[in-house]
Amino acid sequence: MILRNRSSVKKSNVLDKKILLENYGADSFDFVVKNDDGIFVCSKFRELDLIELDQLLQTVGWSRRPMRRVKRALEYSVLVIGLWRHDDKFPRLVGFARCTGDGVLEATIWDVAINPVYQGLGLGKILMKYVLNKLKATGISKVTLFADAGVIKFYKNQGWTLEPKGTKCAFWYAS
Amino acid sequence: MILRNRSSVKKSNVLDKKILLENYGADSFDFVVKNDDGIFVCSKFRELDLIELDQLLQTVGWSRRPMRRVKRALEYSVLVIGLWRHDDKFPRLVGFARCTGDGVLEATIWDVAINPVYQGLGLGKILMKYVLNKLKATGISKVTLFADAGVIKFYKNQGWTLEPKGTKCAFWYAS
Repeated sequence: MILRNRSSVKKSNVLDKKILLENYGADSFDFVVKNDDGIFVCSKFRELDLIELDQLLQTVGWSRRPMRRVKRALEYSVLVIGLWRHDDKFPRLVGFARCTGDGVLEATIWDVAINPVYQGLGLGKILMKYVLNKLKATGISKVTLFADAGVIKFYKNQGWTLEPKGTKCAFWYAS
Repeated sequence: MILRNRSSVKKSNVLDKKILLENYGADSFDFVVKNDDGIFVCSKFRELDLIELDQLLQTVGWSRRPMRRVKRALEYSVLVIGLWRHDDKFPRLVGFARCTGDGVLEATIWDVAINPVYQGLGLGKILMKYVLNKLKATGISKVTLFADAGVIKFYKNQGWTLEPKGTKCAFWYAS
């Protein structure tokens, strides 16, 4: 995993390799940060508990979505990433992001969330880097997202281009 | 198919039902417009010739993409629509749009193109209506797209909301 300058990661490779693999699957990324004594892990393989995910998304104030539809949406996403605060018995889901797309030309990131209790530690930044590295590894060269007004600076600081060439996002709602 | 006010469609159901089904598959939409004596058909089933598609996308000035990647991108799209100018032997592809997403919560439209020779006839509007109707039929209630600077008015006129709640589009490019 490539980590750029000004990383929030204090130290990586902190978990026993076997424990990491057993709990989070191959290709996961474990690290510690300043101001929290826990170990955090980004994983694309550890299975998500839909109720825990729903609770996480609630903490960031997102409207509830039917569990059945969320389940299907995850199945049809090209990448689903959980960010866990490690515990030998009960790792806690503290962050999430997923991606839709065609796997080659277009990839769009949705539902980026960090539990407010763990915000300010730089976890969002690390999660996004992990997501982008995973997408890059599949040969994707352009990634898109719709940035809410409150997080525009967050993405700008991480090298995202806002409204390239005057492109605007457009939403259509079924009536 | 529901067509709203100020439609460009002069007349629909113009092709023989059997010919329509055989050439374009179920659920296709045939129509004529003012200022062109051809019959046009929106179809999600008629197979696309990748070279013809590439040529169409070239006519609107899009950078060439490797055929192999385009093929895979189409396979992984949730909806792929061709707009054809009918001919009993050689229907011509004059428009195109596709959609990625998870099939339930998020749907994003890409690569909307109308051959410049056939622009100004209202085909883009009809194509987009067809796409949205198809998405709506699957239970999707929100559709998104990234509108290039030159087509913002086009989408606005069709009821799309630009930058809802200050949302901005963000692009990330692999280095």
